[in-house]
Amino acid sequence: MRSFFGAVTVAATLAAAPSGAAAVFQAPTTRAPNIVVFLVDDLGWQDIQLPLHAETTAFNRRYRTPNLVRLAARGMTFTDAYAAAPVCTPTRVALLTGRSPASTHVTNWTQRRDQDTSAPFPLLLPPEWNMNGASPDPRTPHAFSGPLLPKILREAGYRTIHAGKAHWGAVGTPGADPHALGFDVNIGGSAAGQPGSYLGRKNYSSGKPGEEFRDVPGLDAYHGTDTFLTEALTIEANRAVDEAVGRGHPFFLHFAQYAVHTPIETDERFVARYREAGLPPREAAYASLIEGVDKSLGDVVENLRRLGVLENTIIIFGSDNGGLAAHSRAGDPHTQNAPLRSGKGAAYEGGIRVPLVIAWPGHTRPGSSNRAPTITDDLFPTLLDVARVPNAASYTRGTVGRDLVPALGGRATLPADRPLVWHYPHFWGTAGPGIEPFSAIRSGPWKLIFFYAGRRYELYDLKADIGETTNLAETSVAVAARLSRLLRSALSDAGAQMPIDPTTRQPVALPPVAGTRAASGERGQRGGD
Amino acid sequence: MRSFFGAVTVAATLAAAPSGAAAVFQAPTTRAPNIVVFLVDDLGWQDIQLPLHAETTAFNRRYRTPNLVRLAARGMTFTDAYAAAPVCTPTRVALLTGRSPASTHVTNWTQRRDQDTSAPFPLLLPPEWNMNGASPDPRTPHAFSGPLLPKILREAGYRTIHAGKAHWGAVGTPGADPHALGFDVNIGGSAAGQPGSYLGRKNYSSGKPGEEFRDVPGLDAYHGTDTFLTEALTIEANRAVDEAVGRGHPFFLHFAQYAVHTPIETDERFVARYREAGLPPREAAYASLIEGVDKSLGDVVENLRRLGVLENTIIIFGSDNGGLAAHSRAGDPHTQNAPLRSGKGAAYEGGIRVPLVIAWPGHTRPGSSNRAPTITDDLFPTLLDVARVPNAASYTRGTVGRDLVPALGGRATLPADRPLVWHYPHFWGTAGPGIEPFSAIRSGPWKLIFFYAGRRYELYDLKADIGETTNLAETSVAVAARLSRLLRSALSDAGAQMPIDPTTRQPVALPPVAGTRAASGERGQRGGD
Repeated sequence: MRSFFGAVTVAATLAAAPSGAAAVFQAPTTRAPNIVVFLVDDLGWQDIQLPLHAETTAFNRRYRTPNLVRLAARGMTFTDAYAAAPVCTPTRVALLTGRSPASTHVTNWTQRRDQDTSAPFPLLLPPEWNMNGASPDPRTPHAFSGPLLPKILREAGYRTIHAGKAHWGAVGTPGADPHALGFDVNIGGSAAGQPGSYLGRKNYSSGKPGEEFRDVPGLDAYHGTDTFLTEALTIEANRAVDEAVGRGHPFFLHFAQYAVHTPIETDERFVARYREAGLPPREAAYASLIEGVDKSLGDVVENLRRLGVLENTIIIFGSDNGGLAAHSRAGDPHTQNAPLRSGKGAAYEGGIRVPLVIAWPGHTRPGSSNRAPTITDDLFPTLLDVARVPNAASYTRGTVGRDLVPALGGRATLPADRPLVWHYPHFWGTAGPGIEPFSAIRSGPWKLIFFYAGRRYELYDLKADIGETTNLAETSVAVAARLSRLLRSALSDAGAQMPIDPTTRQPVALPPVAGTRAASGERGQRGGD
Repeated sequence: MRSFFGAVTVAATLAAAPSGAAAVFQAPTTRAPNIVVFLVDDLGWQDIQLPLHAETTAFNRRYRTPNLVRLAARGMTFTDAYAAAPVCTPTRVALLTGRSPASTHVTNWTQRRDQDTSAPFPLLLPPEWNMNGASPDPRTPHAFSGPLLPKILREAGYRTIHAGKAHWGAVGTPGADPHALGFDVNIGGSAAGQPGSYLGRKNYSSGKPGEEFRDVPGLDAYHGTDTFLTEALTIEANRAVDEAVGRGHPFFLHFAQYAVHTPIETDERFVARYREAGLPPREAAYASLIEGVDKSLGDVVENLRRLGVLENTIIIFGSDNGGLAAHSRAGDPHTQNAPLRSGKGAAYEGGIRVPLVIAWPGHTRPGSSNRAPTITDDLFPTLLDVARVPNAASYTRGTVGRDLVPALGGRATLPADRPLVWHYPHFWGTAGPGIEPFSAIRSGPWKLIFFYAGRRYELYDLKADIGETTNLAETSVAVAARLSRLLRSALSDAGAQMPIDPTTRQPVALPPVAGTRAASGERGQRGGD
């Protein structure tokens, strides 16, 4: 099949290649390592063959991701990795900026210019967040602008390639275009948070009026073909890598597959096995999306090997939020990330815990595992270190992410009790456990969640209770108090925007110290006192 | 002006008068007293000239209700009276049945057949409540049927007259027609919860497609005239009283003015004073609605006096829920019932505390005041006692309302700590303080509210803090625990329907005992344990 596409010319790639250089292969350099971030959309913690829980689960047995298993065998698997947010854009912006959603104010997903995508929530209004996402232009209203990873890496000599879903900026704003954010090459990225369709026969378009912005751009050569979007992006991404390597540039490939986000269409190449296993059609389709993504990962790795640069490339495999569990899936809702509770959009582990595998030959111990909590923010300083960016400290000032490089080689361990913080002052839109405006903090085995509606805390011991079934806020009072103080400080330091009290139109107060009279004495949703 | 209408024939009244008897005046009888329930729609606790708070408030000075002041001078004023619900239909059904909304399952306002009027609420779904309201026919689905006050009084020899807003049953169900519920006469009542318009010039219709059900029925004779709806209903109600007295029947007049519900149109007869006082146009209109209602009360009283039956008539003046404060009013939202917090639809006092004045010559001490908590449910056994209905106990079995008659004369006092319970497992529809699914209980000065979203308690000492500003749930732990036990029992005894967890589609658990580990250990919105 690949040969069929050998002659295809992709406008986006060539337009971004000023010299039109041919793919002249070079020997691996000893210079800065190449970087591949392989970010899958909406991939849940259990949506892979690789076990991340104490034991191999039914989901691990259901899904086939042999290439991810091989990647893990070459690198380090993080069992307790988190997305920066329970929805996509905030996590993606955190990756590009190293800054948490609480500090960028890009706390929800973006769509149209100045459009607040927050679903109506009777008890609280969202703050005036940066609903246009990230922008290279500080004059863009409702947008965060600051040092951006692709720009920094480009200045450091990298060829910067984006493939797949971008979703950093709203339609009609500068951040909608990956080029503007510092990517030399953009393959199929736009303001859209999902593709119109995965089907080449449908031209990767839903064909619905008003949804034109979801038409995947730049893949006209595949229109009318049977090429699944996941595959088309892979072919083009590898071609861009070929070209970068041919030029002798180190490259940064940010490969963000649209899959496994809705629409859950069937990748016919892989679906038979799941249908035969008796999965409901929707779940068989979902599994086929996953296997297609894994095939893409394998193709990228194989291409790097073919180019002779695999040993000088760090590959990071991750996801932007927890797996979809509230709608569009078959079976009982909110169970698709079991043993984790709930899914995308939620404060519980199902909403934020994600797979993370990092393989960097000579740096990661093959087949190693790391139980330290990590979060998307960490990838920014990590990659600045990997690329040996000069003056990295000037880019990481005020950020809370940690450089993972020392931990990768076992030279250092990440502190197990370092606090990770989430801030989602929105209602995602589908009712479900933990799907409401919240802030949360994890430190060691403890996770404390503050739900702004009702201003209530829940505390869980993730070591004993990964499913967050038993709220210990009233029994482990000292722990709740300690974590609540950390949470308050972190939110305050980040300048986090509080939800708005619909009655006063004022922001509600910061989460209180848990267990104090001040906490319980506060008015229901009222703040400012 | 009255003479203008002297010649008007109203079909509804005459159709219900089989003999067409002329109004032959009789001397007051020593038989069963006449009953007037004068129920104003959406009238707030502060929407009257009569002071109910510790001191005369600015609102008492703003609104003119001299006839209510005169009524109070003849009877007993209840300072701590409550509607059975923060919205209309449940309270109205409680008045007709003596049963609390928790037990009738008519917990929200009704409109179209089988239509759930609950507004969407992300965290909880409403139960499958009796959304068709009350029905005389036990076969009506989603409706409560049981002994009904007008039927009982009719069987006891009363001429039963309804005037104004009915709103007991949904459009197209038997309960939509007051005749079916036991009224001999229906003047302007239907399934509608508000009039299309108060203006005769608009034929009491909004004229909007789809809102025909709000056209006030049976008042065709006033169409095209300048007669405000409040006045037209008064003229017709008095005429029906004339007729009943003329026949020598005791009568039960259930006079439920549509005012002061939206649409807040101007009663031109009274508005000048309020405009001159500098009120915003909307508030001037609101005040004119109130004064129009008061004029109606005065006209009813004056007519009874003229007929010579005033001394043998009990008059009860009340409201069906707290004053509107979340929308459609001028000024800061949620302040229109100050010093009470919030308004219609809310768990706080502004949502449920209402004026109540009862005047019954020879039974109520003139100008007396009573601070004992009372609730709509109490009026059913009270009126059965007033009417000396045989076998009253058979109608009140299983109800929790109390006969107020002994208290009226000072023969007995109502226990100050008797528990009053509210159950509103719905979201009313406009964001505001305490406007969310709740159950609540008052006993003595204490009020405990359970909000189902977040499963949290708030406790207030109404004696010290009528504005419910300081939540004492964590400091007065024993009180909260005691009241929570009472609340659990009351809800359980009533068979109250719990809200539904949208994730499990199962009812959530009863409110827990406050302050116990079981309470805080429960999952956020999960129930069934």
